[in-house]
Amino acid sequence: MTPKVSVRGATMPASPIRRLMPLAEEAKRRGVHVYHLNIGQPDLETPPAMRERLARLTERVYAYTPSAGTPEFLASLQSYYRRLNVSLSTDEILATTGGSEAILFAMLACANQGDEVLVVEPYYTNYNAFATMAGLRLVALPSRVEDGFHLPPIEVWEKARTDRTRLVLLCNPNNPTGTVYSREELERVAGFCREHGLFLVADEVYREFVYDGRESVSALQLPGFEELVVVVDSLSKRYSACGIRLGCFATRNREVYSAALRMAQGRLSPPGLAQFVAVGAQDLPPDYAQQVVAEYRKRRDVLYEGLRKIPGVFLTRPEGAFYFVARLPVADADDFARWLLADFEHQRSTVMVAPASGFYATPGLGADQVRIAYVLNETDLRAAVGVLEEALKVYAGRVERESVVGSR
Amino acid sequence: MTPKVSVRGATMPASPIRRLMPLAEEAKRRGVHVYHLNIGQPDLETPPAMRERLARLTERVYAYTPSAGTPEFLASLQSYYRRLNVSLSTDEILATTGGSEAILFAMLACANQGDEVLVVEPYYTNYNAFATMAGLRLVALPSRVEDGFHLPPIEVWEKARTDRTRLVLLCNPNNPTGTVYSREELERVAGFCREHGLFLVADEVYREFVYDGRESVSALQLPGFEELVVVVDSLSKRYSACGIRLGCFATRNREVYSAALRMAQGRLSPPGLAQFVAVGAQDLPPDYAQQVVAEYRKRRDVLYEGLRKIPGVFLTRPEGAFYFVARLPVADADDFARWLLADFEHQRSTVMVAPASGFYATPGLGADQVRIAYVLNETDLRAAVGVLEEALKVYAGRVERESVVGSR
Repeated sequence: MTPKVSVRGATMPASPIRRLMPLAEEAKRRGVHVYHLNIGQPDLETPPAMRERLARLTERVYAYTPSAGTPEFLASLQSYYRRLNVSLSTDEILATTGGSEAILFAMLACANQGDEVLVVEPYYTNYNAFATMAGLRLVALPSRVEDGFHLPPIEVWEKARTDRTRLVLLCNPNNPTGTVYSREELERVAGFCREHGLFLVADEVYREFVYDGRESVSALQLPGFEELVVVVDSLSKRYSACGIRLGCFATRNREVYSAALRMAQGRLSPPGLAQFVAVGAQDLPPDYAQQVVAEYRKRRDVLYEGLRKIPGVFLTRPEGAFYFVARLPVADADDFARWLLADFEHQRSTVMVAPASGFYATPGLGADQVRIAYVLNETDLRAAVGVLEEALKVYAGRVERESVVGSR
Repeated sequence: MTPKVSVRGATMPASPIRRLMPLAEEAKRRGVHVYHLNIGQPDLETPPAMRERLARLTERVYAYTPSAGTPEFLASLQSYYRRLNVSLSTDEILATTGGSEAILFAMLACANQGDEVLVVEPYYTNYNAFATMAGLRLVALPSRVEDGFHLPPIEVWEKARTDRTRLVLLCNPNNPTGTVYSREELERVAGFCREHGLFLVADEVYREFVYDGRESVSALQLPGFEELVVVVDSLSKRYSACGIRLGCFATRNREVYSAALRMAQGRLSPPGLAQFVAVGAQDLPPDYAQQVVAEYRKRRDVLYEGLRKIPGVFLTRPEGAFYFVARLPVADADDFARWLLADFEHQRSTVMVAPASGFYATPGLGADQVRIAYVLNETDLRAAVGVLEEALKVYAGRVERESVVGSR
């Protein structure tokens, strides 16, 4: 008798972007250059101060590190947070295998099987995978392109809450929308959480990436909410070091920290080479983040200024992260994304975008939207905008819409 | 209102060995040398062929790798298995963050919340943590020190099985007992699994470590059981590279592979530096494993010959891995382990052992047993045996028992 895969295994969501990958590969085989506006892998180099650490690694045994992370790495995280005016002791920070593991730990520690999580859609697709692993139900609250995807009013949260709701999961700055929530928005949601005894799990892996003088407020900076805040963090984007798989889980709630630590003990230790490399971040020049952010702001401007001039395209000025969601003058962005790769080329080039439908839980929402990432250099981004403009002129599924550009 | 940690967070087991750590630290502060017979961190060096790879790393961006692992790493795993006469395609192998992640993936893909797992006690403690994360109930079947901890007869398995049983989790060679299951034992359990539609999840991270000409049989080598076998593997022990956190998940069951791959996509990628280093294992001399195993066999002999001469100590000759469980002439091995660290010293030295009770699920079992690891050099092991012998002479909780040494 052949055993059956589990229900959760069978229903584990596949990455929606990956379905387009074979089409992109096929286009490249035809000699068509593909501008990847779909991916979140930064092209900037991992800082030499980190990479050069490897030459200084003298250990002859690559041993387990402590489950919570090496003292050196935890101390480096502690001083990183201190510079943000967030005071944490090293036993309020837990090194994790990327932000991913921190999300899973947070879900498991804050909620039980069958419990509900409030999340604002569109949201980071992989939350679905972690929720399936943890047996949680994500309950999506709408945010709208017209509002720059800012948070819905509290009435919407109140209505969505049930007896099973255990936590709010907020990504700030937001992937996929590029929205940066204001201190007031955060305090409003935190107040809602406190009122109803919910955890606020804040995924802040894009913390540094905010533009136009905006303030990046960490949930760890909200006074009075210490017991309910869990922050999920990662070095992946901050230092363009996605592949080392290093992040952290930070909370001042002792019980939640203790639960996550015991999960961490179960898996023995976070990646050791990564932690060794990561300590090099301490030697970066103080303006490292500003330089990186200036580069991304320039790219954002290229895309934003370019796209807003294309008839029928709608987006508000992206506020942070290195993504945004734009509405296109198409009925079905999934079809458009496939068509771009399979049936279109302009001067031997095409563009790969992520259809936004994959970032919504509610069927039908985001059907005319795409997520655009700006992890390419300026020249490529300009070229990509040109390709997209030409594509929209000839795509058969085009629908006419008023082109309104937000001015927030 | 302060939110409460989840039930699974609250009940997540703490590592039982870690509770003794502060006592060991305290002994060291008093100037007492502690021989660590409690840990599974090999002291052998990570092979230079792997460490030297880091000097050849020219990437300037430490980018995400494919979710299933880099093609190079997967190919190196494929040829590793081919040398064991296990033929796997690269899309039957998934790189994981240590064996730990592979265990979690296997539990999630093979069983649903509330389902049951049959496991032979004593067993690797961290299975409890993963089962708690996955919402599974571990149902423990007894194995006995007198039998060298070999598998109980099929009647015992039949009796323990219920409608909720979904998989058998077998660690072979076994941590903590050092038992190596014979082909017949494995086939018997696999047959039981097939009869009842259960998965056989085989944790084979100690595969190379078998002694006295014993055959190490992988569950992947059992003909006719392809659809139900999932193998959990790790590079940690094989290459003394625990800290890189690299392992794999291997199965020929397409649905289970697909489920695990989608979980892997959720967490984006396994550690990249680790995969780069791991490819260096291909350049190891063909007798690398034999050399390592010869070293551990020597150590085993020192411990086995030393311990069996201590009056009241009972153990059978350890067959594999680098652990074994021995019965001591004490009523309460937890108390004995604490006493060794807190109240005993012999020539300014003491010994840290892992009380076996932490490896049993059934309360009371293993109370007079300890797990001994042999990851120290020969000289230290001889000294540790001497310390243990002296300790057992003066320990107040000693009980008199016939000293019978098994002869398997």
